[in-house]
Amino acid sequence: MSVLAGVVGFRGYSGQELVSLLERHPHAQPVLMEHRADSEDRPRPLRFRAPQRIPSTPEAVHQAGLDVVFLATPPEVSMELALPLLEAGAKVIDLSGAFRLRTAENYRRWYKEEHTQPGLLSEAVYGLPEFYREAIRGARLISNPGCYPTAASLAIRPLVEAGVVDLDSGIVCDAKSGVSGAGRKPSLKTHFCEVTENLSAYSILDHRHVAEVLQNAGLEESQFSFTAHLLPIHRGILETIYFRAPGIHSSEELLTIYEKCYAHEPFVRLYDAGGIPSISAVAHTNFCDIGVKFDAATGRAVIVTVIDNLVKGAAGQAIQNMNLILGFGETEGLL
Amino acid sequence: MSVLAGVVGFRGYSGQELVSLLERHPHAQPVLMEHRADSEDRPRPLRFRAPQRIPSTPEAVHQAGLDVVFLATPPEVSMELALPLLEAGAKVIDLSGAFRLRTAENYRRWYKEEHTQPGLLSEAVYGLPEFYREAIRGARLISNPGCYPTAASLAIRPLVEAGVVDLDSGIVCDAKSGVSGAGRKPSLKTHFCEVTENLSAYSILDHRHVAEVLQNAGLEESQFSFTAHLLPIHRGILETIYFRAPGIHSSEELLTIYEKCYAHEPFVRLYDAGGIPSISAVAHTNFCDIGVKFDAATGRAVIVTVIDNLVKGAAGQAIQNMNLILGFGETEGLL
Amino acid sequence: MSVLAGVVGFRGYSGQELVSLLERHPHAQPVLMEHRADSEDRPRPLRFRAPQRIPSTPEAVHQAGLDVVFLATPPEVSMELALPLLEAGAKVIDLSGAFRLRTAENYRRWYKEEHTQPGLLSEAVYGLPEFYREAIRGARLISNPGCYPTAASLAIRPLVEAGVVDLDSGIVCDAKSGVSGAGRKPSLKTHFCEVTENLSAYSILDHRHVAEVLQNAGLEESQFSFTAHLLPIHRGILETIYFRAPGIHSSEELLTIYEKCYAHEPFVRLYDAGGIPSISAVAHTNFCDIGVKFDAATGRAVIVTVIDNLVKGAAGQAIQNMNLILGFGETEGLL
Amino acid sequence: MSVLAGVVGFRGYSGQELVSLLERHPHAQPVLMEHRADSEDRPRPLRFRAPQRIPSTPEAVHQAGLDVVFLATPPEVSMELALPLLEAGAKVIDLSGAFRLRTAENYRRWYKEEHTQPGLLSEAVYGLPEFYREAIRGARLISNPGCYPTAASLAIRPLVEAGVVDLDSGIVCDAKSGVSGAGRKPSLKTHFCEVTENLSAYSILDHRHVAEVLQNAGLEESQFSFTAHLLPIHRGILETIYFRAPGIHSSEELLTIYEKCYAHEPFVRLYDAGGIPSISAVAHTNFCDIGVKFDAATGRAVIVTVIDNLVKGAAGQAIQNMNLILGFGETEGLL
Repeated sequence: MSVLAGVVGFRGYSGQELVSLLERHPHAQPVLMEHRADSEDRPRPLRFRAPQRIPSTPEAVHQAGLDVVFLATPPEVSMELALPLLEAGAKVIDLSGAFRLRTAENYRRWYKEEHTQPGLLSEAVYGLPEFYREAIRGARLISNPGCYPTAASLAIRPLVEAGVVDLDSGIVCDAKSGVSGAGRKPSLKTHFCEVTENLSAYSILDHRHVAEVLQNAGLEESQFSFTAHLLPIHRGILETIYFRAPGIHSSEELLTIYEKCYAHEPFVRLYDAGGIPSISAVAHTNFCDIGVKFDAATGRAVIVTVIDNLVKGAAGQAIQNMNLILGFGETEGLL
Repeated sequence: MSVLAGVVGFRGYSGQELVSLLERHPHAQPVLMEHRADSEDRPRPLRFRAPQRIPSTPEAVHQAGLDVVFLATPPEVSMELALPLLEAGAKVIDLSGAFRLRTAENYRRWYKEEHTQPGLLSEAVYGLPEFYREAIRGARLISNPGCYPTAASLAIRPLVEAGVVDLDSGIVCDAKSGVSGAGRKPSLKTHFCEVTENLSAYSILDHRHVAEVLQNAGLEESQFSFTAHLLPIHRGILETIYFRAPGIHSSEELLTIYEKCYAHEPFVRLYDAGGIPSISAVAHTNFCDIGVKFDAATGRAVIVTVIDNLVKGAAGQAIQNMNLILGFGETEGLL
Repeated sequence: MSVLAGVVGFRGYSGQELVSLLERHPHAQPVLMEHRADSEDRPRPLRFRAPQRIPSTPEAVHQAGLDVVFLATPPEVSMELALPLLEAGAKVIDLSGAFRLRTAENYRRWYKEEHTQPGLLSEAVYGLPEFYREAIRGARLISNPGCYPTAASLAIRPLVEAGVVDLDSGIVCDAKSGVSGAGRKPSLKTHFCEVTENLSAYSILDHRHVAEVLQNAGLEESQFSFTAHLLPIHRGILETIYFRAPGIHSSEELLTIYEKCYAHEPFVRLYDAGGIPSISAVAHTNFCDIGVKFDAATGRAVIVTVIDNLVKGAAGQAIQNMNLILGFGETEGLL
Repeated sequence: MSVLAGVVGFRGYSGQELVSLLERHPHAQPVLMEHRADSEDRPRPLRFRAPQRIPSTPEAVHQAGLDVVFLATPPEVSMELALPLLEAGAKVIDLSGAFRLRTAENYRRWYKEEHTQPGLLSEAVYGLPEFYREAIRGARLISNPGCYPTAASLAIRPLVEAGVVDLDSGIVCDAKSGVSGAGRKPSLKTHFCEVTENLSAYSILDHRHVAEVLQNAGLEESQFSFTAHLLPIHRGILETIYFRAPGIHSSEELLTIYEKCYAHEPFVRLYDAGGIPSISAVAHTNFCDIGVKFDAATGRAVIVTVIDNLVKGAAGQAIQNMNLILGFGETEGLL
């Protein structure tokens, strides 16, 4: 028997990925939830039917008997829809940044606007299962992590917690993402001719996602320098992370810290010392791969971490969260 | 001494290419002509100044002393601006489809709208120098050819004129273009994620450019099947042309027809029999390259022709036309 | 309970795709079969183990108890390995061109070399399930179709059989493929810098795959003109097919012919008249999508057909064949 | 009157770019110098002739009367050819790493092999005109800088010299390059399918080019962390550089340092504070563009610098050096 999972924002890239993952999930099936016509549908082949469609109203959710609703929407739409949907009895998994920061002040600081549902901030559980699995299981409202912070937090937090990073000289995270991270809405920035054969840096030192990494890894803003870049690829993120680790003697020592932390994690993969993952290793998967390079002579370390921004960075992680809150096996539909 | 060449639509891809070619031209310099703010400018480095800017009005043209104005604009804007600019004393080279077809009826048939300046149709000279060089030299209004028709006409017309094509079985022209041919205005069609790792066919059997090829090569619509495809590249067109040539015995025979026609053309290049050009051979150049393959056993021929849609297919050819009407060497600024 | 499926050539793109499909198959698991070290393995993450490896010898096949062996190898290797593997008791599914043509003469004509196992040609069953499903079920040796012929045959054969194509004026098939179709072996032709921002035509009128299409659709060589092109994408094929259909009056009439033929096919999808599929619609799937455009005024038709060359054009179709010969549901592991 | 400029290694990407720049140079023309057949020529159109060809021997150089020879060759070939060509009377501009480091010890340390011409190391002048213009004018042997070090040195050296960088916490340079930087020789690393839709890090903390940056900017190895990445583009480099500048108060202050240094440089371009260049801004040009972002609250700075690796990073800079040693205007043939 299948649960019904609504998807608001199903025409966007994260929404499409969610629908596609749900169509292959053994215990769930997608329901498309219309919310303001945003763009045209793709042509559908004859005989191969699209999933059921309903409005994104509490009544429709109630009537259709949805168990869970995914919000693949901008923050302002998520703030508008979350409470009514929760009250209609659905679990809500929000893929926007609306509920990721713990305080309304912090939201205002990074999103440059007022939070319209501050009352939900304390209830929302940050959906990074590797760190918050137990809280997720009991949650009613999940805030699915941002794509950049997913990779950065998985790479950085274990090392900061282990106390091996020289925080005085700080951590540099140079992040590169495929274009789907910028959404499906057409703009000059995402025009093919502006992106192909190009690379551009953006949100230098002031990307919204920085706040999440600081929160996850317990860092001060002055300790973490982050720049985002737009890669001429569809999907995938690679982050190159630099820091000093004065007490460390080898790549293996850093790997051991990760191994202790992730030994039983189904979606975090490590490599032998010197083995460095690339984006293609994780494309179309829910894995986060981590590689380590350490220069013993000078105490400098580099971590390379990769995810698919639409899977572990968005829809796949959302499904992982759904599996946890609905009591399915955590990897169902994701391997 | 330099002439002043105005460019309306300088933010589009053809317009940018025009400005860039004019900046390197030994006898001309560009003047940017504002016509309705359409999109943001790119950031300009300090100390490296943009060209002069003026409005796209007859008064400004007169006052600035422009010798020629390029219209890198949609047909409706070209129809609006051409006459006032001509009356202000400038030569006009229009890159849109507004003045390419000889009759208002034909325009209505292919562009699905009324021509608002039918009186200019008989005056406009079709700017394909390889066929209409003398008429171009004396023209006041040049209609610069479409990108697809430039390549197709150069490949097809000599063979049709030589009478070697079996027109009963017809000519197939399978055309593929880079995304810049679709313009700089953002749309879902040109979104990076929709184009990369993709190929799509469009305007099957009913592309506007077909009318130009029929006109140039003296063909009936039933004799010419044309499909356009959107390639995941910035610039370049390749057309693969199929027909039967019952009286021909070898690739060399077909090549001889081309050589006779293009022996003195500076921008048409041929290859040894079996030598087939690819898009990269002509990217960023004003060349049209043509390769030939003939199967003597069955009488079937294939022609492959390539151009850069922004150069020989637009801005480069426009400069070639400017050189002709202003009496410069035809290849100035283009080699 | 799982069957064991050996893969020779597991480092190539078709081989990798096979291994990846088998890892997700509910009733099969892959065994890597070494045959001459050809290239390096990719780095594997810790804790995530590669499948079992055995030599590609009959003894190893026997000892490991393989039920089926896939040959993702060049024709000469397939000719060398097929018989010993069959004699060791395995079903063999060959992805090369070795056993696709029915006679050794035809093989010599198109592959320019002698067939070394002509005795197997009559036994090999051509693995295009949409046309030869019953023969496949009982086969011991399957010859998996070429990528281009899979799409072309599915598009052309129903129309030729229905008698609607004007064969005198002939069929043009303009085919475009991603680079993975050229194999993983490095060469200048597949160097990134030679492919990106480029398009090139190759094997004009003399591609080996032509022979398969003629055989499947019952055409003469003079009736079928085929040119292949190398697209700057990883995977996917689009073929644009032109012909005249003098007795047809509408796109719908052509669609009806396809619908009759493919109404119960799980992997062939049709579109409403005018709906034209693009490569991204089938990437990473085993579908073949077909769209139709007909010009009633002149009797000209264009068919656009797309597949993923690594899935329906290679590994996916091979799994589909495995499902048939081993009695699994035909779509198992492919949806 | 033109000088004759020989090019050894004219089939590689830097060599092709050199030939193409020389063909457009007002005072020079290229001569192709054969040195061991390395790969096939591209097809050449009829009537459009390739440049003259001679062997890469001293006799041929003498006989042809070459004024200058460019070595677009691996270091071992450059070490072999430089002395004989100098003795034949030609100026030599070497694009390899053979003569970039000042001592044979340093060469051994970074290139992992013995230098075979240590006697030339003291004579060779490092060809970065912005820093060593006067020495270049009088040189006989120029060592053209590496692509990564060109961008990094232009961005870093002025700031280090001005004393504003906190060297204790160090400089991070995260560098990304197009594939042409890896050369034209086919390999799995440069196979289209391995590069497209991918990004990979390589030479983490131990790239050979690091030694040049240290030398140019007067840094210790422990002060400079460098990682290279392979972008899915043909040409172009972007480097994102992170450091702390405790005494600085604004982006404008950093810009002022650059402006003082580069006010009269024809090929270095700066942007208004916050204006960040991307690769497309410099593709196919000899410019190095630099943008600045400073966070006053925390004292952290980010510099983004871009060049075309084949132009300012190789062939263009080599032409700039040729212009200097032969007394031409420094920008001839480069604007």
